[in-house]
Parts: sequence; structure tokens; C-alpha cells
Amino acid sequence: MDKYKVVFHIDEQVKVGLTLHNISNLITDIGGDNLEIETVANSDAVQVLVRSNNEFGPMLKELAEKQVVFCACANAMRNLGIQKDELFDFVTVVSSGVGEIVKKQAAGWAYIRP
Amino acid sequence: MDKYKVVFHIDEQVKVGLTLHNISNLITDIGGDNLEIETVANSDAVQVLVRSNNEFGPMLKELAEKQVVFCACANAMRNLGIQKDELFDFVTVVSSGVGEIVKKQAAGWAYIRP
Amino acid sequence: MDKYKVVFHIDEQVKVGLTLHNISNLITDIGGDNLEIETVANSDAVQVLVRSNNEFGPMLKELAEKQVVFCACANAMRNLGIQKDELFDFVTVVSSGVGEIVKKQAAGWAYIRP
Repeated sequence: MDKYKVVFHIDEQVKVGLTLHNISNLITDIGGDNLEIETVANSDAVQVLVRSNNEFGPMLKELAEKQVVFCACANAMRNLGIQKDELFDFVTVVSSGVGEIVKKQAAGWAYIRP
Repeated sequence: MDKYKVVFHIDEQVKVGLTLHNISNLITDIGGDNLEIETVANSDAVQVLVRSNNEFGPMLKELAEKQVVFCACANAMRNLGIQKDELFDFVTVVSSGVGEIVKKQAAGWAYIRP
Repeated sequence: MDKYKVVFHIDEQVKVGLTLHNISNLITDIGGDNLEIETVANSDAVQVLVRSNNEFGPMLKELAEKQVVFCACANAMRNLGIQKDELFDFVTVVSSGVGEIVKKQAAGWAYIRP
């Protein structure tokens, strides 16, 4: 069977916890071997990918070890004054969060916006 | 013509009324015979599918009679201490709300997140 | 290459600014020649397409000149007492905002809900 492919979109910090729990539940339900998951953070939500003072760090690392890809929007980083070396080392910087999401959907990925 | 297929996603109680009105307007616009509609509730929004003290009960029943499918996320039910027998009898429990949405999109369904 | 096609959905006024910046960034990132973009406003967000007292007017016009299509939901207009001649002249009225989004996705468009 082909893997299910899904991109999660977070642009509000208040939705970070819900999104990470959604992803964790999805992996438990369908199985990591049957899934490709990418999470794209833009706007204020990009702050969740900054290493310092981050309550979600352990959960992010655990999901990254399960092959969940995390992307940070370069536009949001510039607006918020965040440098790449402030992000967790497993984060990929993309030139535009919405551009990344559009490309994934064009390639057949499902989209979930918690 | 093939029917339009669409899955609605609600994970906030505050969005329940808007979502139900969106569905009702969609049926009026495109016609129930041309649509397959499923609504997946997870996180706090799963409470709208509980029978007791539910202001949305009449609207939910009316939509269910028009063949709108309502799904409740088992993870959210467990977190909120909701039992299956507390739900409206037309509700389907799914093992994971996001898993259900991913499978629908993989099968070609549109996704709307009010 | 085929153009990327994407429909943006706004149903909250508070999300209008973010959505318009998302669209602007997307055009900068991928290039207007490689994109077809439509923005569907329903519920309260339809008010952003009314000409009077609209802080977003200049940005809307700039995006419309870049071929971004803006649609207003007729149900939302009726609920809010908005007439067609109150809208910017580049706005298209659609019978149902969610119906328009469903049809776009059925035709292969990506969906983004900021």
C-alpha cells in the first residue's frame, strides 16, 4: 500500500499543542510505517520551533525521531527576528510556508489545519 | 455526474454553529443528491455530538436525516470521559479524527475547516 | 509546467490580514505567472470585501491587479445585509462560499485555511 501523506498547518501558537497531539494520535492510529507527515509552521506558530524556553521541545524531538518533518517559514522568521541557528536542528527552513503547503497538496498530500 | 465529496473538520466548540450552517447552505446550493458530506469532530468539538443539553441537537438531526455523516474521534472521547452511549445514535466513532480525515482526502474528498 | 492552483478560505475577520500577507508571500515565492489564486470569504470575513472604511482596500486592490480572484459568499452577504454594489468592483459573488471551495478542490486546487 502507498503511504498516507499529510501536511499539517499551524499558524497560531495556541494550536501547537493540539496539532502535536493530533500527529501523535495519527501515528498511533495508522502506524508510522504507513505515513509521511510534514508540519509547516508560519506566522506566530514558527516560534514553537525555536529551541529556547520551549515547553514542546520533548514532544517535537520525539516526533522528529519518528520521521515527522518540521518546516519553518522564512517570511515568519524574518518578521519575528528569528535566526536559523535558533531553531531545533531537525527543522527545515522553507522560503514560504504556504508555498510549501501548496506544493505538497499539488503532489497529492492531504491537508489538515487544526 | 459524480457527487461532490467533502469532509468538514471541527475541533473547536465555538465553530460548531458556523460549520452546521456551512453544511446546510452547501446542501441548499449544490443539492443533497449531488453531495456526500462527512463531519469529523475531534478535540473539544466532540462534545457537540453528546445528546444531553445540546442546543445543536435539532440541527444535527436534520442534517443526519439528509445523509450527512457525523464522526466522533475516540481519542477526544477518552480525554473528555465521553462514552459511546452518550452520543446521538447517528454518530460513528472513529479511532482517530485526523486519521479519518486523511483517509477521506486520500480517497479524493475535499476538506473544509471552518 | 502547470500552474499551482490554490483557494484560500477566510471566515473570520481577524484572519484577513494574515491571509492577505500569506497570498502576497506566496506570489513572491512561487511567482505570479506560476499561480492561480482564489480567495473565498464567507461568514463575518465577507465584510473585508466591502469598499467603505476598509483598511485592507489598498492590499486587496494590489492583489486583484495581480490576478488574485476574490469571491464573496451570497449567504453571508444576506445575513449581514450587504448589497453587491457595496463590494469592490473586482469581487465575484458566489451562491455559497463552501460550495465554491468544494468545486475548486474537486477540480484539483489546493486549499489553505489560515
